[in-house]
Amino acid sequence: MPVNPARTIAELKELRDLTADANGAQRLAWTPMWLKARAWFEEKLRGLPVETHFDAAGNRWVTLEGESPKALLIGGHLDSVPNGGWLDGALGVLTGLEILRRFAEQYNGRPPVTIRLIDWADEEGARFGRSLLGSSAFAGTHSIAADRIRTDRDGIRLEDAVKSCGFDVDRFPEASNERKQAAAYIELHIEQGPVLEALQLPLGAVLGTKGVERWTITFHGQEAHSGSTPMNARRDALAAAAKLALEIRPIARKHPHAVCTMGSVKTFPGIVTAVVGRCETTLDQRDLNADVLAQMFREAREAADRFAREENCTVDWSKIWSIEPVPFHTTLIDFCEQAIVETAGAAHRLPSGPLHDAAEVARAGIPTVMMFTQSLRGISHNKIEDTKEEHLEQAVVAFDRLASKTVEWILRS
Amino acid sequence: MPVNPARTIAELKELRDLTADANGAQRLAWTPMWLKARAWFEEKLRGLPVETHFDAAGNRWVTLEGESPKALLIGGHLDSVPNGGWLDGALGVLTGLEILRRFAEQYNGRPPVTIRLIDWADEEGARFGRSLLGSSAFAGTHSIAADRIRTDRDGIRLEDAVKSCGFDVDRFPEASNERKQAAAYIELHIEQGPVLEALQLPLGAVLGTKGVERWTITFHGQEAHSGSTPMNARRDALAAAAKLALEIRPIARKHPHAVCTMGSVKTFPGIVTAVVGRCETTLDQRDLNADVLAQMFREAREAADRFAREENCTVDWSKIWSIEPVPFHTTLIDFCEQAIVETAGAAHRLPSGPLHDAAEVARAGIPTVMMFTQSLRGISHNKIEDTKEEHLEQAVVAFDRLASKTVEWILRS
Repeated sequence: MPVNPARTIAELKELRDLTADANGAQRLAWTPMWLKARAWFEEKLRGLPVETHFDAAGNRWVTLEGESPKALLIGGHLDSVPNGGWLDGALGVLTGLEILRRFAEQYNGRPPVTIRLIDWADEEGARFGRSLLGSSAFAGTHSIAADRIRTDRDGIRLEDAVKSCGFDVDRFPEASNERKQAAAYIELHIEQGPVLEALQLPLGAVLGTKGVERWTITFHGQEAHSGSTPMNARRDALAAAAKLALEIRPIARKHPHAVCTMGSVKTFPGIVTAVVGRCETTLDQRDLNADVLAQMFREAREAADRFAREENCTVDWSKIWSIEPVPFHTTLIDFCEQAIVETAGAAHRLPSGPLHDAAEVARAGIPTVMMFTQSLRGISHNKIEDTKEEHLEQAVVAFDRLASKTVEWILRS
Repeated sequence: MPVNPARTIAELKELRDLTADANGAQRLAWTPMWLKARAWFEEKLRGLPVETHFDAAGNRWVTLEGESPKALLIGGHLDSVPNGGWLDGALGVLTGLEILRRFAEQYNGRPPVTIRLIDWADEEGARFGRSLLGSSAFAGTHSIAADRIRTDRDGIRLEDAVKSCGFDVDRFPEASNERKQAAAYIELHIEQGPVLEALQLPLGAVLGTKGVERWTITFHGQEAHSGSTPMNARRDALAAAAKLALEIRPIARKHPHAVCTMGSVKTFPGIVTAVVGRCETTLDQRDLNADVLAQMFREAREAADRFAREENCTVDWSKIWSIEPVPFHTTLIDFCEQAIVETAGAAHRLPSGPLHDAAEVARAGIPTVMMFTQSLRGISHNKIEDTKEEHLEQAVVAFDRLASKTVEWILRS
């Protein structure tokens, strides 16, 4: 009674056909298309010996009761970014469904431990700018006060969008009730990066999610006429920003997995005939090691101060967001690697740059690990996001092996 | 019967009170406020022995007939940018008026040569993006086809705005009829830069207007996730642009008066969580020497190609606009310098970075020179644009001396 990876791929395509248009997947959380995807998923549960309900934060729980109340949690998310891909999030949910079916069949509806599949609500945060919404409510790290007044581009408030789907922001904290008896959490996801493809490996064991420092850095110089202002009389805010854009690269390259990105530069007045008087930039720094992250942040601040001085400018920093690194559970990482080696012959350990619901679950103290499958060209959040079908099939098989190993570990614990 | 600089300053303030709001001067060409300024100016001509009319391009001509039909032209412009200053353009027109009065009084209405004052139409090009509109029609360098379909931010077409003021774009070329008998052209303007202030000099003799190369340069890399894309797998379009932003500075500094400016940088997708896939920048290069300008342009192109290669990006260039350098008349430059030395004790020769109507007049083959007066902090196109009143008074006196020297030169020619 093995898993049937072909069925998972067929279901992923069925979901794509139902919820994508010419620009890609449109399963934006708290919209009718997302509800449609969730209703479709509910149909897939028919005939399985499971109980299903939504928690107070809109996460769907599907429970296959086991001999032991101790539960293995398997998660993913059906929501997508606008114009998204067919795999990001949905691969985790539909592979989890396949594994749930396998446990149900193999153990005649009563596996040795309880198996719970979760479709997290609003992992992407694409509409209101608050990612990991449902899983952070589960983890108890969600702060209602800061998020309820968020609005989308049409001015609709998060709390009203949530209400239109039948949920109440004030009751989100009750989602943490689902943590009872949670013994481990596993999640399968596409890598969303080019590392496994470059190594020609289908699968990787994820070490954790990198911590992030995310800031707006603004350099202030002096707007001046491009024709009448001699080079030596300028206070060019862009020059200081350009130096920083280049300097963050050696700062990151000192460390094997670290990344630093300047993703946005805005110039003011931003016209061809004026020296830039103000330059707003963003910096995103990530690493799995908190000390490395702190060092990179310190070095970037020192560099920005130095470049501001050199260009006779000033600089100020404004925090957008930060999160500490979340390392996964070492035993589960070992299981993940073994499952991959047994399936595909070779594994690679890598940190995750993107955040995932798994980070929130791990922060709640539940032993956690993720498995990555190769992304073609490292592209996601785009309709061209793709993974070879043979890799998807290997992913379902390897992830099922990880589930079995974790169940055995829960029984032993 | 000397000029009366105090009257010029009083008239400049009167015009400011009439046409400025809390944000500065609002004499945008082809708008009711501009027409109001021009009507106010017409009132000032009452009682003077002059003929006045508009040419086909909307330039106002005020003619004081002399013994000789050979004419000294004195120009300026009453139009301003939105939220502009009180001196840019208007100083030239109102100083010219004062000199016209002086010639009329001194020679009982008939000076030895004809004196013609011009209020050029739409020098700034602030509404339709086409500067020097009236003077280029006069010079015959105006191309109707390219400009008639320009629209302002409200979608109003240039030709319709012109028509609402009583002019017809199709007849613009007839403005060149005014070139007959033009023997010399002089123009007083604020410097709009920091050079004279740094030298603590009130006045400067202008060598010409710098040539300009103005381009959009776009680097194409690969958009990628800021968290999952290792530093060595990136094709960061911003990195290539940042290198160019820094490299244009040594390229300019090889030459004493040259300037290179990157005034605008736009990043795409331009979000904190993505490596920049496309970076659009602007480059503005200026010098009075055509060979220097050509060399700087060549060096910038080579540098952009090199940086694109280094960053595994591509680059393309799209021309916005260019103009060749326009050197002024060497004899008139000498007169200008002498007039300044006689008035203020010391003079400085400098090129003009900004363009002026004088450049169009010079391109039409008319001997031309400009005089600059110091700008405080080098700021213009802003309500805080200012010049010390003692410097304005010296400017009127020195410019009157330049007019006299030029009249004598016309008589000798």
